[in-house]
Amino acid sequence: MKWTETLIPTLREAPSDAEILSHKLLLRAGLIRKLAGGVYTFLPLGLRVLRKVEQIIREEMDRAGAIEVLMPALQPREIWEQTGRAETAKGVLFKVRDGADREWFLSPTAEEVITTLAAHEISSYRQLPRNFYQISTKFRDEIRPRFGLMRAKEFIMKDAYSFDVSDAAAMASYQKMYAAYHRIFDRCGLQNFPVEADSGVIGGSHSHEFMVPADTGENEVVFCEACGYAANREKATSGVPGTAAREPGGAPEQFATPGVVTIEALSREPYGVAAHRQIKTLVYLVEDSPVLVLIRGDDQLNETKFSARTGGLTFRPATPEECVEILGARPGSLGAVRRVPAEVRVLADERLRGANDMTTGANEDGFHLRHVAMDRDVRVSDWFDLRTVAAGEPCVKCGQPLNIRRAIEVGHVFKLGTKYSEKLGASYLDESGARRPCVMGCYGIGVTRTLQAIIEQGNDKDGIIWPLSVAPYQVCLTPLQVAAGHPVMELAETLYRELTARGVEVLLDDRDERPGVKFKDADLVGFPIRVAIGEKSLARGQVEIKPRRGALLAVDCAAAVSGIMAQLQPPG
Amino acid sequence: MKWTETLIPTLREAPSDAEILSHKLLLRAGLIRKLAGGVYTFLPLGLRVLRKVEQIIREEMDRAGAIEVLMPALQPREIWEQTGRAETAKGVLFKVRDGADREWFLSPTAEEVITTLAAHEISSYRQLPRNFYQISTKFRDEIRPRFGLMRAKEFIMKDAYSFDVSDAAAMASYQKMYAAYHRIFDRCGLQNFPVEADSGVIGGSHSHEFMVPADTGENEVVFCEACGYAANREKATSGVPGTAAREPGGAPEQFATPGVVTIEALSREPYGVAAHRQIKTLVYLVEDSPVLVLIRGDDQLNETKFSARTGGLTFRPATPEECVEILGARPGSLGAVRRVPAEVRVLADERLRGANDMTTGANEDGFHLRHVAMDRDVRVSDWFDLRTVAAGEPCVKCGQPLNIRRAIEVGHVFKLGTKYSEKLGASYLDESGARRPCVMGCYGIGVTRTLQAIIEQGNDKDGIIWPLSVAPYQVCLTPLQVAAGHPVMELAETLYRELTARGVEVLLDDRDERPGVKFKDADLVGFPIRVAIGEKSLARGQVEIKPRRGALLAVDCAAAVSGIMAQLQPPG
Repeated sequence: MKWTETLIPTLREAPSDAEILSHKLLLRAGLIRKLAGGVYTFLPLGLRVLRKVEQIIREEMDRAGAIEVLMPALQPREIWEQTGRAETAKGVLFKVRDGADREWFLSPTAEEVITTLAAHEISSYRQLPRNFYQISTKFRDEIRPRFGLMRAKEFIMKDAYSFDVSDAAAMASYQKMYAAYHRIFDRCGLQNFPVEADSGVIGGSHSHEFMVPADTGENEVVFCEACGYAANREKATSGVPGTAAREPGGAPEQFATPGVVTIEALSREPYGVAAHRQIKTLVYLVEDSPVLVLIRGDDQLNETKFSARTGGLTFRPATPEECVEILGARPGSLGAVRRVPAEVRVLADERLRGANDMTTGANEDGFHLRHVAMDRDVRVSDWFDLRTVAAGEPCVKCGQPLNIRRAIEVGHVFKLGTKYSEKLGASYLDESGARRPCVMGCYGIGVTRTLQAIIEQGNDKDGIIWPLSVAPYQVCLTPLQVAAGHPVMELAETLYRELTARGVEVLLDDRDERPGVKFKDADLVGFPIRVAIGEKSLARGQVEIKPRRGALLAVDCAAAVSGIMAQLQPPG
Repeated sequence: MKWTETLIPTLREAPSDAEILSHKLLLRAGLIRKLAGGVYTFLPLGLRVLRKVEQIIREEMDRAGAIEVLMPALQPREIWEQTGRAETAKGVLFKVRDGADREWFLSPTAEEVITTLAAHEISSYRQLPRNFYQISTKFRDEIRPRFGLMRAKEFIMKDAYSFDVSDAAAMASYQKMYAAYHRIFDRCGLQNFPVEADSGVIGGSHSHEFMVPADTGENEVVFCEACGYAANREKATSGVPGTAAREPGGAPEQFATPGVVTIEALSREPYGVAAHRQIKTLVYLVEDSPVLVLIRGDDQLNETKFSARTGGLTFRPATPEECVEILGARPGSLGAVRRVPAEVRVLADERLRGANDMTTGANEDGFHLRHVAMDRDVRVSDWFDLRTVAAGEPCVKCGQPLNIRRAIEVGHVFKLGTKYSEKLGASYLDESGARRPCVMGCYGIGVTRTLQAIIEQGNDKDGIIWPLSVAPYQVCLTPLQVAAGHPVMELAETLYRELTARGVEVLLDDRDERPGVKFKDADLVGFPIRVAIGEKSLARGQVEIKPRRGALLAVDCAAAVSGIMAQLQPPG
């Protein structure tokens, strides 16, 4: 391809609304253009990279025995009603009403569609296992789309759905995908690692996210360098010690704390109650039902864990007025010892188990209680792990200190169980003729997000650094004279033909621009190899091969093709 | 690929809502499944064919110098307002409102998006010509989706948009696409021919449709076998003679025609006025303004021509009550001689030019007028070709009789002019530094419809007959014993490996089914070559090669691979 015959609109400066480096580079290198917030057009080079990432995914999915299909973006509302997700996912669903007043949802995923298909097409254990995947456009009504392709309203996702006869078989399918995901991200040149993950609104019992470390990532990953434990901070646990028991004290004793409404204030004189000896009491409304959450004063509630423990239902913190209505006091003086209505569910964090001589709010504004013992004084409905892990806490597996780093989630594997297959009738007859629900898994990769993650990991001050596997073109030929018939241009055209004939993807920069402009653009777009052909080096019988990540090599013209081919070999 | 490791759910009977043969075969061969009315999932074999058709299109578009991009499905309403199509195309637009109450349209085409992109990225004549294309999912709110992929709510379309400096340059771009379309449909194995077409709501001055002859097609094509003239019946003209002039008669004379409200009734005794001596008067409301249409009694109004002549605005026939209000009489007694309000536009078909001694309604129920002369008695606002061509009329180019046949429209090329570029600011600076609007063309191919058209043209009583170029697999290996280690299965597996190594796409039917079932399914799906391996023929040292369209060949096992490869060569 010639530069002047395609569209590569490089920019000196990124538009001001591009916040992170990879987004800026996507725009500056002319890979994408914004049509509207969260909605982008792929320009020729961006589309080439996208297709290569898709092809890597396709090859590894095929290799893992998955079967490619293509499901519609328009999904009838009815199947979403059947699984209950019309309600639980409504915040992110784009809804469309047709001329016949029928409602459709634009596919954010396709559990309902594939399970409906399986219900019709799978009938016997002999047809299992099956794993169906598609690579297609998905839609999500992001209120605040941002970071370019990282969080868009329209994006490309690979989604796969496995159907198995049993939990054990489903786990084998899960492991195949887990292994395939490693290969996919490795082939994309991405540093990546799986972490234990929360299953979220999609449901399911077992899940891992594939993460790419990046300072701009929207996820926090808790990991242990010693033993390899890694989990999304939303899900992570640690081996943090419980709360030390003290000598059993007397009954809870009320004391005045005028104006004291924070953990920190109570820890100061004249009260001097250390944060870890306080019980923090939070009030949430889970679909209008009040729920108390008790957590140690020095801990933070993890709302994802809370959501998982309350059935994934809609929830929000109670307002101060609602707190008064429920417990008789305002936030800052709340507790779970007195005046807690019997119908209010009380969830306590495991770290409070057995704690005594604690201090908490008295449910009377301006007063607290001391000498509170959890076992004796608090009606706990359920004990759960509800706290957020902090850096430095001991690893839950090996006890070494945990680290936290930011990362981009590029893939997600879930074991779904029978949640969807039961609701949508995807069952099979087993060897004894009994009907049983298929055991499902689902597996997603954010294709467009993966593309951007590759840039986020591969760049320097000059621009993008593509891995060979996904570069838009492997080689950029840069003749410094472009007039037809000029020896420089003639050599460029010869190299173009010879490399193309060897299956190399070559872009010929035939623009009549200064060398500096052409070199800068080639570095900005990030072609793995740039080959400069100029009058001076040609006079010496040489061309200059510049790997994007390596040092410039001057090679004889006659050896140019073999020199370039050598650079295209994988290292090692 | 092994049959048991993919999903090919063949059916003995097609679901009852499949109306035409190709739709039935799509379902019976397990290529697609319906999710909801007008919305389909592509199963593995269907997707393979789809990708092959897409790849043929991609190769020919690239060869013609077009540049592939990918535009979003979500298009902001604002750009559709700018071109006025938010209103004119509203009947087919799926509308989506996001959480921030912003309105989006789901892409039915992408003139607005690409022209907005060109407005930003194209600035100089040096960047022209450019032709951008994409292959992507499109949406159309079809009230009555039908015929499977032929008229669906969601479908795949290739759309291309050219930008040029002048009309002449745009015409050259148009001709390139015209030639590319021929190659594309030829490579898909489709009999196809271009016809002159109406440009419809999309606007533009010059257009051809690419048609595939098929009895189930929704289009009627008028064509001349003698000279090759071909046009969509919506657009076609013929060399039909005008209306013979008679001796000038006296003034119009009213006569009673009680109960006579049809051309046919007036042609019978006692009146005996031949249909071709009558003037038919039709009343339409074009966006609430009444318009009269005069056409000869033996002709039919062509509403597409009428729409093109009235600016593509919304129109409908007037109700009988509205006719009374406008002209004072009900349909059957209408005319344009008397009592026609001055503000009512009167359009007359060219065939009535100069006609005299005609009979028409008197605008008084139960009365007609005779001795009407168009020139003398009727105020005609505009003369247009408004009639529908009938079979047997003389060709407008060579005078030979025209034929009409039904066909499927698979592609459409338009010269758009500057309609979109002017409204969306897609302009360039010419060599003298003057700013001029780009001259555009646009070019569509219904990809999923093309796939179905291939089936509509290629089938027999046993099923589909795929051309080699788009067959889901080229070869279906059918061992009649599938137990592991059986010599029959071993030979099948050897052939599978050897053919696959040669780049042949092979499906191995490893199902433990009766030979009849396997042969029937292979014929139904329509693989170009079926290779049967059975104990009997193996005992003779032979396998049986059966081309889908040819006679069975028994060949020696040792010559099986070369025998199959020979069948895969293009004929001639």
